[in-house]
Amino acid sequence: MKEIQGVDLNSDIGESFGAYRVGNDAAILDVVTSANVACGFHAGDPEIMAATFAMAREKGVAVGAHPGYPDLWGFGRRVIPHSPGEIERIVAYQIGAAQALAHYSGHKITYVKAHGALGNLTQTDPDVALAVTRAVRAVDPNLICLVIALGRQDRIAREIGLTVMSEIFADRTYSEQGLLVSRKLDGAVIHDAEQAALRVVRMVKASAIETLSGNMLRTPVDSICVHGDTPSAVAIAARVRQKLQESGILLRAFK
Amino acid sequence: MKEIQGVDLNSDIGESFGAYRVGNDAAILDVVTSANVACGFHAGDPEIMAATFAMAREKGVAVGAHPGYPDLWGFGRRVIPHSPGEIERIVAYQIGAAQALAHYSGHKITYVKAHGALGNLTQTDPDVALAVTRAVRAVDPNLICLVIALGRQDRIAREIGLTVMSEIFADRTYSEQGLLVSRKLDGAVIHDAEQAALRVVRMVKASAIETLSGNMLRTPVDSICVHGDTPSAVAIAARVRQKLQESGILLRAFK
Amino acid sequence: MKEIQGVDLNSDIGESFGAYRVGNDAAILDVVTSANVACGFHAGDPEIMAATFAMAREKGVAVGAHPGYPDLWGFGRRVIPHSPGEIERIVAYQIGAAQALAHYSGHKITYVKAHGALGNLTQTDPDVALAVTRAVRAVDPNLICLVIALGRQDRIAREIGLTVMSEIFADRTYSEQGLLVSRKLDGAVIHDAEQAALRVVRMVKASAIETLSGNMLRTPVDSICVHGDTPSAVAIAARVRQKLQESGILLRAFK
Amino acid sequence: MKEIQGVDLNSDIGESFGAYRVGNDAAILDVVTSANVACGFHAGDPEIMAATFAMAREKGVAVGAHPGYPDLWGFGRRVIPHSPGEIERIVAYQIGAAQALAHYSGHKITYVKAHGALGNLTQTDPDVALAVTRAVRAVDPNLICLVIALGRQDRIAREIGLTVMSEIFADRTYSEQGLLVSRKLDGAVIHDAEQAALRVVRMVKASAIETLSGNMLRTPVDSICVHGDTPSAVAIAARVRQKLQESGILLRAFK
Repeated sequence: MKEIQGVDLNSDIGESFGAYRVGNDAAILDVVTSANVACGFHAGDPEIMAATFAMAREKGVAVGAHPGYPDLWGFGRRVIPHSPGEIERIVAYQIGAAQALAHYSGHKITYVKAHGALGNLTQTDPDVALAVTRAVRAVDPNLICLVIALGRQDRIAREIGLTVMSEIFADRTYSEQGLLVSRKLDGAVIHDAEQAALRVVRMVKASAIETLSGNMLRTPVDSICVHGDTPSAVAIAARVRQKLQESGILLRAFK
Repeated sequence: MKEIQGVDLNSDIGESFGAYRVGNDAAILDVVTSANVACGFHAGDPEIMAATFAMAREKGVAVGAHPGYPDLWGFGRRVIPHSPGEIERIVAYQIGAAQALAHYSGHKITYVKAHGALGNLTQTDPDVALAVTRAVRAVDPNLICLVIALGRQDRIAREIGLTVMSEIFADRTYSEQGLLVSRKLDGAVIHDAEQAALRVVRMVKASAIETLSGNMLRTPVDSICVHGDTPSAVAIAARVRQKLQESGILLRAFK
Repeated sequence: MKEIQGVDLNSDIGESFGAYRVGNDAAILDVVTSANVACGFHAGDPEIMAATFAMAREKGVAVGAHPGYPDLWGFGRRVIPHSPGEIERIVAYQIGAAQALAHYSGHKITYVKAHGALGNLTQTDPDVALAVTRAVRAVDPNLICLVIALGRQDRIAREIGLTVMSEIFADRTYSEQGLLVSRKLDGAVIHDAEQAALRVVRMVKASAIETLSGNMLRTPVDSICVHGDTPSAVAIAARVRQKLQESGILLRAFK
Repeated sequence: MKEIQGVDLNSDIGESFGAYRVGNDAAILDVVTSANVACGFHAGDPEIMAATFAMAREKGVAVGAHPGYPDLWGFGRRVIPHSPGEIERIVAYQIGAAQALAHYSGHKITYVKAHGALGNLTQTDPDVALAVTRAVRAVDPNLICLVIALGRQDRIAREIGLTVMSEIFADRTYSEQGLLVSRKLDGAVIHDAEQAALRVVRMVKASAIETLSGNMLRTPVDSICVHGDTPSAVAIAARVRQKLQESGILLRAFK
């Protein structure tokens, strides 16, 4: 009997702050199986975090800590200079804060995914990849590392012995080396929902990343990253979900 | 055979921030048995916290989370308006962050004590006392509440069923109602080390708070709060420690 | 020959921050004659401020500094404890920052209006009213104080000899004492655009505040405060503008 | 009749924040003729700024705005990613805030010097040098630019037509290209007060920078940068002052 193939669908949420509201958290929580929750350094605050964890719990969505640089003004998208040791400490701090507020809201952090500029560096910079991984291990080695497939942290976290969940992006294209094409280049972002959904199904079924030239680079594909910051992003996410289900692929949070 | 009487000695530490340094943390850690570590909202940062936890571990000093209002400029000494629910979330957040970084540094948070203006309100305001207590219980009901003896949180935390550690102050005088005399009044602060030390020994032996008129108000006396922010404060703390030991009272962290 | 009556229309703008966007600044700038621009303490940042000043200049709208408490999380709506002297310094700081960025954008700050919780206190607390006024005078005595009509700062700023612009609110009702009815009470806010507009015209023509019972309390009425944070708020503001113009009242920035 | 040669002596001050205190501001103000005052982004706050301006006024010391990156945690010593345009706006904002609080304290900002990582970039990065210079010009073209002698901003600010004051460092050595030797290298910092003072006199008299090999690179030498953050730094500053005076060089603020 054939095993049913499954995959996780993740998105960043909880990125509001104080009186400021961003994203369509309620809508995207109806689509994804895992939610990456901002921890108050680049976005989010204790009120937003607790409310987001409670909403995810009600909707049966798994939650992960989504630590970023301490940079509310830059939304975590700028590389703020930190030594690897400093990265360990800011990531550990944020994981702990998220664990406490998830617990407060009757939920539980099961994984960690680095945000924005910090997350991008985990793909390419071995020191940053190691620092984030060491922080996860120090706080709780049972936490899963949600990492960019084929990136530096993907390899390092596996070597260290942590459980790893490799993600691909629903709306981003890949170079022949398996790196995300820079947003500054044409063709970096896929805007058509149908195209994005069909491509995701191909990658999940093949367990591979599809490059710009059509090459398939083998990798575990445990999760699909989608966005919820605009109505059209939510529409793409919903289409991806639907296509995966139509293809007989089970949507479920990892582990 | 007579039971040996014991008491804990606690102080606030880890209150530096970035390039700014305050306090004599290394010196006070040689005196106390428990250290209340700032959590990054009113003082402290992930670097300071991790280093402070590591130093406390090396010196065999127990560590507690010391959450305060989000008010670095005011050092947590101003009442920043928060609803009880908001207090629950900011306290839970800070406890979690402290737990993670303590764990990162090979140590473990065993108790929680509210800082500054927030701590003062736990003595007199039942809503704030309850909010802090509920945050502790929500994050981990095994955490001890370090509270002001005879204050509101003292009663509330016991009613809720948490373990409570009641503290008296080595250098502060008490009204007939057992409240701390306001620092704005003459005689509120005891500056003489010998006088402070002898008074502490009387209170510990009697298990009571000594009021300005000499009345003794019965209360558990589980911990003595001392200060480490100036050389003279450390000297008072050291004298208190010495006098307690000379009186046959065991210095040890609670639990 | 009869003098043409004129009045100013003001609104808070420039309240976005970093990646966070609030308000319909472009739309409200087409309606008002004066714009109160957040100065980076409770909202706004140097990027937002410079862009807002430039947009106001292009649309021929006067600009004022809109200082608030240093409280981005609370959007300036909480009373953060400050001594009168501290209020002087935080207000002076923000005025200067706004002056520099207005100048940078080819515009010029002509007035100052306190924001949110700080602004509310200028209506009722003489110490706060004096502190804000003293800050304005210290930075530049030619700056106009935009104040709540019949409030404490209205009287104090006139006594000190500064130029004062007294404002009424288009969508708020007044007690018999001329105080704003608390938003917590029914009937505090007027939601109907036509009703708000007609009432504003009555108040401007009578140079008086209309109380809940219909009494008219005499006061200079130099400016009308409208809101731009929601599409319906902008609609009310536009209706107020139209009705004033239809009534032969000239819309123009003060001075 | 020979003209009396004069030079300015400048130091960073006002770098405390809230309850945190750094530096020996009162002591260094007795030595220098110009004080670079932090503007609240990397250090300082409205209270510190106003008190510092008042103290400088009493002691007859000129004051300059000392803007830095918005990075209290890093004390302005980290390069926080900003576009040139963003640098213009954060610098303009800080100059304006400093002008207002100087005026509030009865003093007047006469110059601008970039701080820390931002200041270092003005020596080597033409885009940053231009951005800081453009901010100064936009706020007030009469403000003097205090720049690193022979650096990028030195040339650019002169080209743009602003008044420039070129500074050398009392305790830092220079490469053959006239660049500051990195602090990471041996010999970068001069710790001996006598040696530093004699060298400063040579450089002022020769109107040149002395390189490690003893070469003298011709440049205007309008100001000497000294430090006041430690007692030994103040001692070096005082020795430099004394030697200059003994050499018949007049100590006086520029302009």
